[in-house]
Amino acid sequence: MLYLLTNDDGIYAKGLSALYQELSKDAECLIVAPEIEQSAVGHAITIFRPLMVRRAHKDGKFLGYAVAGTPADCVKIGIKELAEKPVALVVSGINRGANVGINVLYSGTVSAATEAAIMGVPSLAISLNTLRDADFSFAARFARKMASFIMEHRSMNNVALNVNVPAVPEAEIKGIAVTKQGKAQPTECFEKRVDPRENIYYWLAGEMPSSVSEDTDSDVSALEKGMISITPIYYDLTKYDILAELADKVRTKLR
Amino acid sequence: MLYLLTNDDGIYAKGLSALYQELSKDAECLIVAPEIEQSAVGHAITIFRPLMVRRAHKDGKFLGYAVAGTPADCVKIGIKELAEKPVALVVSGINRGANVGINVLYSGTVSAATEAAIMGVPSLAISLNTLRDADFSFAARFARKMASFIMEHRSMNNVALNVNVPAVPEAEIKGIAVTKQGKAQPTECFEKRVDPRENIYYWLAGEMPSSVSEDTDSDVSALEKGMISITPIYYDLTKYDILAELADKVRTKLR
Repeated sequence: MLYLLTNDDGIYAKGLSALYQELSKDAECLIVAPEIEQSAVGHAITIFRPLMVRRAHKDGKFLGYAVAGTPADCVKIGIKELAEKPVALVVSGINRGANVGINVLYSGTVSAATEAAIMGVPSLAISLNTLRDADFSFAARFARKMASFIMEHRSMNNVALNVNVPAVPEAEIKGIAVTKQGKAQPTECFEKRVDPRENIYYWLAGEMPSSVSEDTDSDVSALEKGMISITPIYYDLTKYDILAELADKVRTKLR
Repeated sequence: MLYLLTNDDGIYAKGLSALYQELSKDAECLIVAPEIEQSAVGHAITIFRPLMVRRAHKDGKFLGYAVAGTPADCVKIGIKELAEKPVALVVSGINRGANVGINVLYSGTVSAATEAAIMGVPSLAISLNTLRDADFSFAARFARKMASFIMEHRSMNNVALNVNVPAVPEAEIKGIAVTKQGKAQPTECFEKRVDPRENIYYWLAGEMPSSVSEDTDSDVSALEKGMISITPIYYDLTKYDILAELADKVRTKLR
């Protein structure tokens, strides 16, 4: 059984290494990950230039394939070209920082899992709720549990599970919640600066999502309560609940 | 009233120019668009480097702001920083090539409109179903109609409308369909090559989506029938219909 592991922090990231340590207890694991950090690339794919692919090593041993592209690229090329047998599961992470609320759309980590779902391969994205240098050991053990859980429930082939883990000692975790994607978004602003050649440039700045006015059954709320959140993610952005009303308006009012 | 116009083909693209010509009949239009083509960047945003912003000119006149970033970056910085008054509507396009089915997730054009919806600004993405050098005039006139339609129905502030127009003469258009995002995806493969220094690289190759086994009420099907498709797009990837079943399985089976 072959698992494909990827992330958006890059092939040498600690979170990916922790994932590999745990998951390789259950399955053969192939790492196909970005050559350099790809945070916030969302579901970008590379179509106007070729993908350079390099066999990466660590401590003299083959580590995996480093792809000069995005997490979604890694999943596509990993499944279609680099893996020598069918991929049973794609696991993306462990991300340094939560992927909840609106950030799910910007997340390379989650998009890798979504790409797998599009290709009909079960998948899991896993993130740890801290930006500090982190202890990934509990999240990695939980990823292993989740992987077994998914392999037992094959009906989830077209759904990616987005898992977020609180960055607290295992004993302090308050439980597991199945959640929906929240609507929390960072409060953002742009800082304007001038370079030495008098060109204007801007840094995107902002604070993390707050759960103010967030639904209690969302990923953001669960994480704030100290719970692990599991959100099923699908590749359909249609706003179904307004389809009928919109069709009616278009028929009668679009002149 | 101020409209913000953007695209993913770059600030000098013909489709954007056609859009400006028509929409500026109804509103003041500010162009904030990528400096260079950003197709397939999805919902990527730029967080690890600053955004360079340049006042771009054409024929000696101010054209708009060229941003060295993604379409979603353009919408964020356009609304928050560059526009001198509130933006009433964001229009993204006219894209050369349809944005239907799975391609909606990869599309910079659609992601720009989705970003506007996240920010609470009504929005519209518009694409023409051809990759050839195209006549954008009908699509531009239709975009103007859609813009007025959206401004009359303010309830759609948090929904982006994804519009795809067949590339046929106006008289041959078969009607307008309100649709859902299809599941069609390109049949993809990777072409392996070797560079002059013996490094391996891959080109993503593939054919356009086919509507085989596509639902008849999808964007892909409508376009194939020669109809204009309008799909309401929302920024929530939750797979709601399996939430209860998943919660049950997690409670009983996740050990």
